[in-house]
Amino acid sequence: MTQAKNRQILLAARPSGAPTAENFDLVEREVPTAGPGQMLLRTLFLSLDPYMRGRMNDGPSYAEPVAVGGVMTAGTVCEVVESKLEGYTAGDIVLAGSGWQDYALSDGEAVRKLDPDAGPLSYALGVLGMPGFTAYIGLLHIGQPKAGETVVVSAASGAVGSVVGQIAKLKGCRVVGVAGTPEKCDYVTQELGFDVCVNYKDADFADQLAAACPDGIDIYYENVGGAVFQAVVPLLNTWARIPVCGMIAHYNATALPEGPDRTPLLMRNILTKRLLVRGFIIFDHYADFPAFFSEMTAWLKDGSVRYREDMVEGLETAPEAFMGLLEGRNFGKLVVKVAGPSS
Amino acid sequence: MTQAKNRQILLAARPSGAPTAENFDLVEREVPTAGPGQMLLRTLFLSLDPYMRGRMNDGPSYAEPVAVGGVMTAGTVCEVVESKLEGYTAGDIVLAGSGWQDYALSDGEAVRKLDPDAGPLSYALGVLGMPGFTAYIGLLHIGQPKAGETVVVSAASGAVGSVVGQIAKLKGCRVVGVAGTPEKCDYVTQELGFDVCVNYKDADFADQLAAACPDGIDIYYENVGGAVFQAVVPLLNTWARIPVCGMIAHYNATALPEGPDRTPLLMRNILTKRLLVRGFIIFDHYADFPAFFSEMTAWLKDGSVRYREDMVEGLETAPEAFMGLLEGRNFGKLVVKVAGPSS
Repeated sequence: MTQAKNRQILLAARPSGAPTAENFDLVEREVPTAGPGQMLLRTLFLSLDPYMRGRMNDGPSYAEPVAVGGVMTAGTVCEVVESKLEGYTAGDIVLAGSGWQDYALSDGEAVRKLDPDAGPLSYALGVLGMPGFTAYIGLLHIGQPKAGETVVVSAASGAVGSVVGQIAKLKGCRVVGVAGTPEKCDYVTQELGFDVCVNYKDADFADQLAAACPDGIDIYYENVGGAVFQAVVPLLNTWARIPVCGMIAHYNATALPEGPDRTPLLMRNILTKRLLVRGFIIFDHYADFPAFFSEMTAWLKDGSVRYREDMVEGLETAPEAFMGLLEGRNFGKLVVKVAGPSS
Repeated sequence: MTQAKNRQILLAARPSGAPTAENFDLVEREVPTAGPGQMLLRTLFLSLDPYMRGRMNDGPSYAEPVAVGGVMTAGTVCEVVESKLEGYTAGDIVLAGSGWQDYALSDGEAVRKLDPDAGPLSYALGVLGMPGFTAYIGLLHIGQPKAGETVVVSAASGAVGSVVGQIAKLKGCRVVGVAGTPEKCDYVTQELGFDVCVNYKDADFADQLAAACPDGIDIYYENVGGAVFQAVVPLLNTWARIPVCGMIAHYNATALPEGPDRTPLLMRNILTKRLLVRGFIIFDHYADFPAFFSEMTAWLKDGSVRYREDMVEGLETAPEAFMGLLEGRNFGKLVVKVAGPSS
């Protein structure tokens, strides 16, 4: 650790549209020293997730934006290098939110110790962490699936969608995935056990989706927005539920799509079909995390939930990997391996 | 009753856009005779409501359309003229759905006896009937108002909106109405006790609405859609609820509004503010009608809910009155007085 530097990736400038390399800045700083009540964390794994695009924008949202010149935010799995904080000792592995950097100080706020024997450490950033929990809450609390219902999941091979669909299968639903390549669709049906998966890039996507949902749609788990959402709306059944988790198709948009304004069409469907449309942000729900964690651990153990990571190596790869995530170039949960544990 | 004819107003042709006189046909038929298990009803009052515009269209919705050449549907208050149906005798007053005509046969299905001493008979078509119940369910079951919250109600002087706002006041909310004339706004604040009422036809409507909601909007009771909805969305607070009851601004539309497509803006608000948007159709909720009826009867009696009817006379006035309803020309609950009781 002697001579170590702390590499940080900063938000260099706010993007207009899709982020580019110019929006990020890789700098080297001194590794900080833990003061009383602090510990020094070293990043092992860094999670890249679509919500981070929103943090690059200014303006009010559910969370503070990253400041220009600030370190990009991210969930991380870290090793405690040095601790002057009660309850933590060097070598502990923790889940933190220390961002796109090698090292960070922490006072223990919003940090949770991980059990290194509970599974691969990086799973705490995916199927056993925020994305898996997001899938679980949105599907079960808002969607409330019943056996025999049809559930459509967008971004079906991704960190959230893959888990949504597998839980829906466990609940006895017919599950239709939507993904962006034939390989992803094959994975979703053959490995994850969805009943069908439709490629939204196909010219006849809307027809394929309709054919895949002969009994209509009872739950649409919304991760993407855009053309997928427009194809879903006419297929929704009376009493259908739409947990709104994300809208990745719009995150890089610099203007609203061309008209006509389809809002009245959506509202008319909401009215006449008695739809429930509900947005949620996962950090409101952590009281239910223990129940999720124990169920998901069991599902992983008995093989009823499978999980795929798209692991890239090196902190410096994070900007490019993140840009790819926004275009659907990842395949599985995108994680950056920043460093190995010290022992 | 000798020589009486049964005047009926038929759907002559499906409207494209706003209905015109040509879409209706007034015909005279023989008064039918009650067979075994039937009773003959004579219409006293006929309710005109925005939902009827939807029944004039073809195509799937939550209820069957009126057939071309069929009698226009409506809720009615009727007197039993003759009964061969157990439990009913001549002179009984009933709530029925016998439509735009003087007489109708009934087998008692979807008919309810009214207590002539419970208040003016026509109230069963308004504050004590479907519109009042719609206000109650949408606000209380979906909106779930809490004291101190801000509730915005569109079509605030109308049959539903006027009741929504008054119940919200009873629950301790700040209530902001939206209506279409200065006279309606004065009525809403001075007679109904809303805190503020804003005229959506004013050029600076969106600014006025924002000024009227300094703490944002916690519940938006949606009756109209259109420009009012667009002005509401940016003012919604985190956790706001939108019961979707109607969209009268769009009922006569022949095409979607010009772009851009604002759907992503709405969905982004739903997501980041964790909004609940829920449509409902009142006939799903009649199990709760007795609770509503007893509460509303008490509120009317003690003066905490006030009610205004816009009463027009004569079955033949119904088409013109209905066209006016869709343009906001009524002031209060629109009811057609078709005939007086026989005694």
